[in-house]
Amino acid sequence: MYVKRNYSLWMTVRWSKKSLINGLIYSALIVFLYEISPIPFSLPWQPISVIGVAVAFFLGFKNNSSYDRAWEARKIWGAIVNDSRTFATAILSLPGSEVVFSWKKEMIFRHLAWLVALKHALRKGKSWEHNLPVEKMVFTPAFKEEIKDGLNPEITKYLSPEEWEQIQTYSNFPTQLLKRQSLELEKIHESGALDSYKQVWLHQLISRFYDTQGMSERIKNFPFPRQYASTGLWITYIFCALIPLGLLDIFEQSPAMHYWLTVPFSGIIIWIFFLVDRIGDFSENPFEAGYNDVPISSITRVIEIDLLEMLDEKDIPEPYPVENGFLM
Amino acid sequence: MYVKRNYSLWMTVRWSKKSLINGLIYSALIVFLYEISPIPFSLPWQPISVIGVAVAFFLGFKNNSSYDRAWEARKIWGAIVNDSRTFATAILSLPGSEVVFSWKKEMIFRHLAWLVALKHALRKGKSWEHNLPVEKMVFTPAFKEEIKDGLNPEITKYLSPEEWEQIQTYSNFPTQLLKRQSLELEKIHESGALDSYKQVWLHQLISRFYDTQGMSERIKNFPFPRQYASTGLWITYIFCALIPLGLLDIFEQSPAMHYWLTVPFSGIIIWIFFLVDRIGDFSENPFEAGYNDVPISSITRVIEIDLLEMLDEKDIPEPYPVENGFLM
Amino acid sequence: MYVKRNYSLWMTVRWSKKSLINGLIYSALIVFLYEISPIPFSLPWQPISVIGVAVAFFLGFKNNSSYDRAWEARKIWGAIVNDSRTFATAILSLPGSEVVFSWKKEMIFRHLAWLVALKHALRKGKSWEHNLPVEKMVFTPAFKEEIKDGLNPEITKYLSPEEWEQIQTYSNFPTQLLKRQSLELEKIHESGALDSYKQVWLHQLISRFYDTQGMSERIKNFPFPRQYASTGLWITYIFCALIPLGLLDIFEQSPAMHYWLTVPFSGIIIWIFFLVDRIGDFSENPFEAGYNDVPISSITRVIEIDLLEMLDEKDIPEPYPVENGFLM
Amino acid sequence: MYVKRNYSLWMTVRWSKKSLINGLIYSALIVFLYEISPIPFSLPWQPISVIGVAVAFFLGFKNNSSYDRAWEARKIWGAIVNDSRTFATAILSLPGSEVVFSWKKEMIFRHLAWLVALKHALRKGKSWEHNLPVEKMVFTPAFKEEIKDGLNPEITKYLSPEEWEQIQTYSNFPTQLLKRQSLELEKIHESGALDSYKQVWLHQLISRFYDTQGMSERIKNFPFPRQYASTGLWITYIFCALIPLGLLDIFEQSPAMHYWLTVPFSGIIIWIFFLVDRIGDFSENPFEAGYNDVPISSITRVIEIDLLEMLDEKDIPEPYPVENGFLM
Amino acid sequence: MYVKRNYSLWMTVRWSKKSLINGLIYSALIVFLYEISPIPFSLPWQPISVIGVAVAFFLGFKNNSSYDRAWEARKIWGAIVNDSRTFATAILSLPGSEVVFSWKKEMIFRHLAWLVALKHALRKGKSWEHNLPVEKMVFTPAFKEEIKDGLNPEITKYLSPEEWEQIQTYSNFPTQLLKRQSLELEKIHESGALDSYKQVWLHQLISRFYDTQGMSERIKNFPFPRQYASTGLWITYIFCALIPLGLLDIFEQSPAMHYWLTVPFSGIIIWIFFLVDRIGDFSENPFEAGYNDVPISSITRVIEIDLLEMLDEKDIPEPYPVENGFLM
Repeated sequence: MYVKRNYSLWMTVRWSKKSLINGLIYSALIVFLYEISPIPFSLPWQPISVIGVAVAFFLGFKNNSSYDRAWEARKIWGAIVNDSRTFATAILSLPGSEVVFSWKKEMIFRHLAWLVALKHALRKGKSWEHNLPVEKMVFTPAFKEEIKDGLNPEITKYLSPEEWEQIQTYSNFPTQLLKRQSLELEKIHESGALDSYKQVWLHQLISRFYDTQGMSERIKNFPFPRQYASTGLWITYIFCALIPLGLLDIFEQSPAMHYWLTVPFSGIIIWIFFLVDRIGDFSENPFEAGYNDVPISSITRVIEIDLLEMLDEKDIPEPYPVENGFLM
Repeated sequence: MYVKRNYSLWMTVRWSKKSLINGLIYSALIVFLYEISPIPFSLPWQPISVIGVAVAFFLGFKNNSSYDRAWEARKIWGAIVNDSRTFATAILSLPGSEVVFSWKKEMIFRHLAWLVALKHALRKGKSWEHNLPVEKMVFTPAFKEEIKDGLNPEITKYLSPEEWEQIQTYSNFPTQLLKRQSLELEKIHESGALDSYKQVWLHQLISRFYDTQGMSERIKNFPFPRQYASTGLWITYIFCALIPLGLLDIFEQSPAMHYWLTVPFSGIIIWIFFLVDRIGDFSENPFEAGYNDVPISSITRVIEIDLLEMLDEKDIPEPYPVENGFLM
Repeated sequence: MYVKRNYSLWMTVRWSKKSLINGLIYSALIVFLYEISPIPFSLPWQPISVIGVAVAFFLGFKNNSSYDRAWEARKIWGAIVNDSRTFATAILSLPGSEVVFSWKKEMIFRHLAWLVALKHALRKGKSWEHNLPVEKMVFTPAFKEEIKDGLNPEITKYLSPEEWEQIQTYSNFPTQLLKRQSLELEKIHESGALDSYKQVWLHQLISRFYDTQGMSERIKNFPFPRQYASTGLWITYIFCALIPLGLLDIFEQSPAMHYWLTVPFSGIIIWIFFLVDRIGDFSENPFEAGYNDVPISSITRVIEIDLLEMLDEKDIPEPYPVENGFLM
Repeated sequence: MYVKRNYSLWMTVRWSKKSLINGLIYSALIVFLYEISPIPFSLPWQPISVIGVAVAFFLGFKNNSSYDRAWEARKIWGAIVNDSRTFATAILSLPGSEVVFSWKKEMIFRHLAWLVALKHALRKGKSWEHNLPVEKMVFTPAFKEEIKDGLNPEITKYLSPEEWEQIQTYSNFPTQLLKRQSLELEKIHESGALDSYKQVWLHQLISRFYDTQGMSERIKNFPFPRQYASTGLWITYIFCALIPLGLLDIFEQSPAMHYWLTVPFSGIIIWIFFLVDRIGDFSENPFEAGYNDVPISSITRVIEIDLLEMLDEKDIPEPYPVENGFLM
Repeated sequence: MYVKRNYSLWMTVRWSKKSLINGLIYSALIVFLYEISPIPFSLPWQPISVIGVAVAFFLGFKNNSSYDRAWEARKIWGAIVNDSRTFATAILSLPGSEVVFSWKKEMIFRHLAWLVALKHALRKGKSWEHNLPVEKMVFTPAFKEEIKDGLNPEITKYLSPEEWEQIQTYSNFPTQLLKRQSLELEKIHESGALDSYKQVWLHQLISRFYDTQGMSERIKNFPFPRQYASTGLWITYIFCALIPLGLLDIFEQSPAMHYWLTVPFSGIIIWIFFLVDRIGDFSENPFEAGYNDVPISSITRVIEIDLLEMLDEKDIPEPYPVENGFLM
């Protein structure tokens, strides 16, 4: 997530330079062909403009949906923050005073293990994502390290080696960690230190973690439907392919100008439409370990700080760093 | 669900070739009639373009609604994942230690039976769906097999023959399976191993399964209202019928060109509008056993794996295969 | 609810023939007046087209809202299905084994009485609805019978004559039926067969029925605000009144044509806009006993079948019939 | 709330006659100045039409938000209906049989006192509302009386004089009435007639009333943000100011006509845009004691009837009257 | 939040004068260059108008999202009002009569401490906010004082010096205050004056405060995605840069006029588009201590008054003042 006020125009252009350059080259080519060809193949602008409106609608719909996906992802991780605080508070205050502190700490640590396991699980690449190689994340070196190191160094801070080893025999680590939490609660219940009523409330909190985990996985595993994304892309291509042909027709009336004005003007229109498409495209998958991601690393860190402070731990980690304007 | 980054332009064209070809033929016909007829029946473009905007609005609304239906369907099945994990965890940890493991396993197996029964029930054809014959699902052979084999081989893995036989006497299998789950809980409650409080929480989980089942059935049984779909279709037809007439009027000013330019240009515009309509049309029914479905087979498999691993079963099935880019 | 794939073009035209014919007559009249009048009162098209865009926006908003109303109505009745199944399951499994089966059956029957009472209450006409006389429902004879017969034959299947008589002394039958359910639960609680905890859960289910009943009544009793509906209608009228005047101006340049082309072209545009308005108008009130209603009769039947099967009744009614493509 | 099918065109025009007349006068003035002035200050229409599209977007957004506010207000009051029925049913059936009926009646009466107190509180004027003087509500005489009489005659039907006097020492009557309900429940709990579990459920219902009360106050106290409303208004003004200038340019080509055609045509376009703006403006505040309000008086009456019938009271009030097509 | 009916046109212009002036200067410059340059670099208007439609779409999307953010923020703080009332009522009525009043008062005071701590935490500047220096808040002197004084004077009214000191050792004050509330409840529970069931209900209320706190932090910490905001800004810039070039082309046909008409007309169009962009921009961050904020200071005051009145305190603060039309 970018946290400065605005991307500069220069960054924006550089980021989408491919479509700008291709647009210019393509337009120049059309003008050149038009010049050398005996056939005046220009097209009237009016019908093109109707296509333009339809494309604008489609891109609007796509951007809206992408934004909704990102915003929902952020909401889900917001809920994880809230429920984590509630859960830790509940673990600290609801069981009877005969429950030892070390058990409470273990529960909260296992919760943090669930959290980091989920964070890393959400960043495995998908066939529809951009899958930028991690080496290219040059703007965010600390984040690059985190991705490279993987789950192991983070989870072993919170889980005993035996338990970590056992969890690794399963397919979905977070799911099985939550099951373990539930069995631990039953143990305390059987010992008499947690009545049935409080146990169910704690189980309902675990149910909420299953919910937020599953909702994150849903956004991760169900892309913006590819048929919509592809249609949007192809009609943008067709519309842009028609633009210089339409401009030729308009500029034709003042032949002196059209050699050099059709090309930049056409290039700019093409670039605007591809830019709008690309913005949606790059915001679609909020967990793809890219610069526009929902910042789940820093959210995780916020939860770690709050929960470790609740345990009055001494060794509180720093807030996640902002690197070159990016908070990941 | 297609899981590659984009449908190729070629696939897109092939999939909607009918409207492209028809559009071209129709336009050619109009041009031909215009040539041979003494009446200059072309139409001005400006009013057509207002119709175009209205049609673009309508299609935007239709696409939006279709997308919402698909996304809601995915959310419902995401909730089924979450609740299934919660339910299995609850069955394993909430009843007292005097409850035998075989009962717990039976409960979780009956839950999986409910799941596969629901999956198959959602795939029975509806009069407003596309009802592609299953033999034509050539891109996804494994899925084709699953549909052909039907519910029986899947449900008998999880249900005793007697129970399965009894369930078949009812109209709605999943509904009656959940009632059975509830009666089983009461049995354990009467034996004293599950207090009233935990029983109610488990009953609330069953209530959630009634909810998600009913919500799936709602999307299945209540189509995007046919009056909206039909209106969208007919006004698209009328708009497209007018397009070549309007282009004729524009191209008229340069008669040398209009024989061959009206036809492809008109064909492309017609194709774009029908493509946008068709995308919505094919995304409307997320459970019609077609390529753009919400992938409930693979979601079912994910649940099976998680729950069988919770039971520490040995025989864990493989994740559902991606076939030619499709995950069903 | 229409359940075939699409209304045919012919049905669509016939259903909205009034606006097509009026549009044609009006346009012909304008052309005629223009011919005989010495004043050339045509109007430029460009400003009309801006009005057209504004009207398209407004109709889009109206259609969207109508659709949302229908979809919400369907969701509410989906929730009634889910909660009914949950409630019946709860009645069958939660009370202690000392509770006699006849009481359980009575509770579930009274619930079905609530359901049919609600169904009929939702179909009383409102001053803003279309109020098509029931005799005109020629496509759905079975449904026509149901409406004519009214509540009595349906509710007496599920309620004793004494109770039915007593309920009729109140204004709102469903409300008082639910109160009765609640008092019955207290009776069982006082007898010791239902602990406080389960009683509250059952009361919460009754609370959900109050919710869904009240939500249905809200949609029934609060129309799409008439100020929006009227504004939409009047600006459509004004826009359509201007259309032939604008076309005259365009066709003027080729006088040979405008006698016969202005009229059909104008008629088609007028028809399209009125059709789009009319679709929204006829989908606005999802419980007006019309062809586009949410099919609450068949949903009611689904619940009856499921609940009677749960009671292992012998006399299970048939699913609701589809008549001429309509499921009511 | 208007409850007839449509406002007549005449009512609509009369209601917005100011903008129609002003639009005509302004257009006439421009035409007159254009005639007498040596400077041909007309403007090209094309750029004006782009502004028109932007204005149409903005008004669409404003109307949408206004509608959402009204609809949410209606939902909240729908929830008040549902929760009131649930609460009354709970008061009648959950406490043990040793609780006297007079206490139950007192609780339900105090609930009705909360309801009417909330109704009147929502109708105090706000600085951004239209604040039509109550004397001008000529179409709804019964409603006018209700507003004039104020809270006192309604609340004293349900509250003892002592309690009413005490409540008046606080700022927010409904809030303190609910606190009182909660203390009453504790009293019954301490007497042993309401176990802890049922008490909490009843307290949760009181929490719901705090929710719906607070949600009503939120809509009442937080207007559609004035920066959006004002921007919408000012850009509509600018757009409308430009309209006759643009029309002059178009009509210029046929000078014989433009004296008399620019004026009415321009007036109609101006009127349409102001009408669309005004509709949103007048639907923005659903509790401003105006004709387009959410009908909270009649909803209150519905609740009174249902609850008094549950108590088997003899003196049931009549449903709220529809006056001249308005239900308030 | 502005609470008068409309910002005056003058205020609106003054607030956005920068874009109006820049637009005029830029347009004048273009006209000047066009005059002195031998190259006729004007551009056709039609393609510019398609860009205009795309920009209008994008700004519509941006304004919509900004509004949704503000409205959600208001909803969250509405929920804080409701839950605070419920919580205070619960503290006063649910614990047994052996609990001393001073403990109840302490709990409610600590809740108010949480509230003011949250209010101040939400007003720390963010890198993407406008961060208007507090000295410039000349219209709202009382609010300026509040911001300058900071948290300390407000929180010490509700928290003992020792507790306040201890809370300051943590990163997130509100989080740790809620944990403290939960531990206090356990203390009362262990003393026997609050049964397990009521304790869990009170813990659920604390969970709701964690939710609303976290939701406020989510809106505060997750801006409207900067990639969308920047794209919107840059395409508005490009569109506006093209406007005078397009107008030149149109006015060219009547050269006598274009010196002085292109400039103001172009300036007005540029200003409208930047105004619409700016409105969204300034409504995006509802907690940035600016004039368009959600009025959390006055909401806090409302809660303080209600809760102190519930405690029958003598020293009730005044409602928050409206200063120059602003309620903060």
